[in-house]
Amino acid sequence: MTFGKVAIIGLGLLGGSIGLAIRQHLPGVKTAGYDSDPQVRLRAAERKLAQEICESAAEAARGADLVILCVPVGAIEHAANELSGALEPGALVSDVGSSKQSVSAALARALPGQPIIPAHPVAGTEHSGPDAGFATLFHNRWCILTPPDGADPEQVAALSEFWTALGAMVEVMTAEHHDLVLAVTSHIPHLIAYTIVGTASDLEDVTRGEVIKYSAGGFRDFTRIAASDPVMWRDVFLNNREAVLEMLGRFTEDLTAMQRAIRSGNGDALFDLFTRTRAIRRSIIEQKQDDARPDFGRGDHG
Amino acid sequence: MTFGKVAIIGLGLLGGSIGLAIRQHLPGVKTAGYDSDPQVRLRAAERKLAQEICESAAEAARGADLVILCVPVGAIEHAANELSGALEPGALVSDVGSSKQSVSAALARALPGQPIIPAHPVAGTEHSGPDAGFATLFHNRWCILTPPDGADPEQVAALSEFWTALGAMVEVMTAEHHDLVLAVTSHIPHLIAYTIVGTASDLEDVTRGEVIKYSAGGFRDFTRIAASDPVMWRDVFLNNREAVLEMLGRFTEDLTAMQRAIRSGNGDALFDLFTRTRAIRRSIIEQKQDDARPDFGRGDHG
Repeated sequence: MTFGKVAIIGLGLLGGSIGLAIRQHLPGVKTAGYDSDPQVRLRAAERKLAQEICESAAEAARGADLVILCVPVGAIEHAANELSGALEPGALVSDVGSSKQSVSAALARALPGQPIIPAHPVAGTEHSGPDAGFATLFHNRWCILTPPDGADPEQVAALSEFWTALGAMVEVMTAEHHDLVLAVTSHIPHLIAYTIVGTASDLEDVTRGEVIKYSAGGFRDFTRIAASDPVMWRDVFLNNREAVLEMLGRFTEDLTAMQRAIRSGNGDALFDLFTRTRAIRRSIIEQKQDDARPDFGRGDHG
Repeated sequence: MTFGKVAIIGLGLLGGSIGLAIRQHLPGVKTAGYDSDPQVRLRAAERKLAQEICESAAEAARGADLVILCVPVGAIEHAANELSGALEPGALVSDVGSSKQSVSAALARALPGQPIIPAHPVAGTEHSGPDAGFATLFHNRWCILTPPDGADPEQVAALSEFWTALGAMVEVMTAEHHDLVLAVTSHIPHLIAYTIVGTASDLEDVTRGEVIKYSAGGFRDFTRIAASDPVMWRDVFLNNREAVLEMLGRFTEDLTAMQRAIRSGNGDALFDLFTRTRAIRRSIIEQKQDDARPDFGRGDHG
């Protein structure tokens, strides 16, 4: 492993999982962690999310040749400013944020002259905080690197090797393309889920108790996603605005077409869509990006 | 148990699960099954989904005091017509369909004078067909009965006892209210899921391979629901049109408000919604309507 010491700034689900994954997969690599919340630092020390839990970001970054910012994308620039002047020369700065153009720009502003390769491991759960992380979070998940123009190929390779060691598969693309892809595979699904859960909570003619009781009809799936961290997701939407609005526009067009099909009783249009969508699920399961068991293997089936 | 013999018409996920659940929970009750597809009958016999697999609906209904139609709601009237003249006097007719006003009307048209109590067990998986059923599908799930005006309270009680014996919890409401409640807890979630999966499949600037690879960002959850049976769901939307369009209108209004918040950079509006939605998930888990494990317990967490 090229990196001798990794500093993890932010010790929630992602930061904590990186620390635990390094301990499991790269026992020779040193780790230091920092979180701006003292309670999180306390819990991180108890769970040993990093070998050393520090009282400042600068302290954690001392001697580190890889510094990973694991904070909501809206807090990236502030976190990077705290590192300004404290990084080792040549230390690689990366992150795990869900929007990459905004992060790339923020890091370049805050840390001029420092090598920067933004990254996004496409992995997570609906839980957050220092208790949520686990060592296998990245197993068989994709991690996208978005090196800026002129990034050192050796550092791209080193960061790729790092994520591969944690169990991930690595892909390289531009920040712009990343933001478009993730808008559709992650951001719009979250926005839709948050919205329908909100809609269902606010009805007068259907009680909240009824929504909960009959949620097994499909609704409950959306509530899992809609239980994700509010700050993280607010920041994603504010920081990937253009791609999200673009994809939302396309979704809304398609939804309007379905609405029209229902209103006019066009069963063929409904049937055609409902048939086409099965193929994608099959591919996702074949590529081991989801569980093949019915109903995600919930409950006591079988 | 009040019922001595149950006829199951339609041997897919729901019909098959009823047969297997009776065998497990009500071993004294006889079962006969029929499906219009000969291949399904063959497989149903192999899996012993009912004690007797018959060559016609009328044959299955002979001597039955409870007949449950487990076909797509658009096929209910046709299936009921096949039973016309073949039912025992006083045999109770029920179903498992996801829309109740249309089913109630169709059954009343096809079987005048026969006692009818429509029902809807709110349970299922994304799989369908004679291999999809299992005996515990109804455990800890709600089954809604929608007895028409003038239904015999003793028959309502008997049907309620039947579903309770299969492991379900029973609620009684009007067909009209059922259709509104299920529009929001089941039909709109399915419509949204089908639509976003369709949107993602048709993009030019993001490949289908990318959608699949990065689906763990949230999208994959929607593909499970969007793998549900196309005929069943086409029929639901055609048969619960008014309630679906009503709820879709409310969802679209809320989505437009979120779109405006993103466009104008109104982080507070986003944060408020994203915080409110967590409470409903907690209640769903407390009421054991979903798995508490992170990410539905997928993969090798922990």
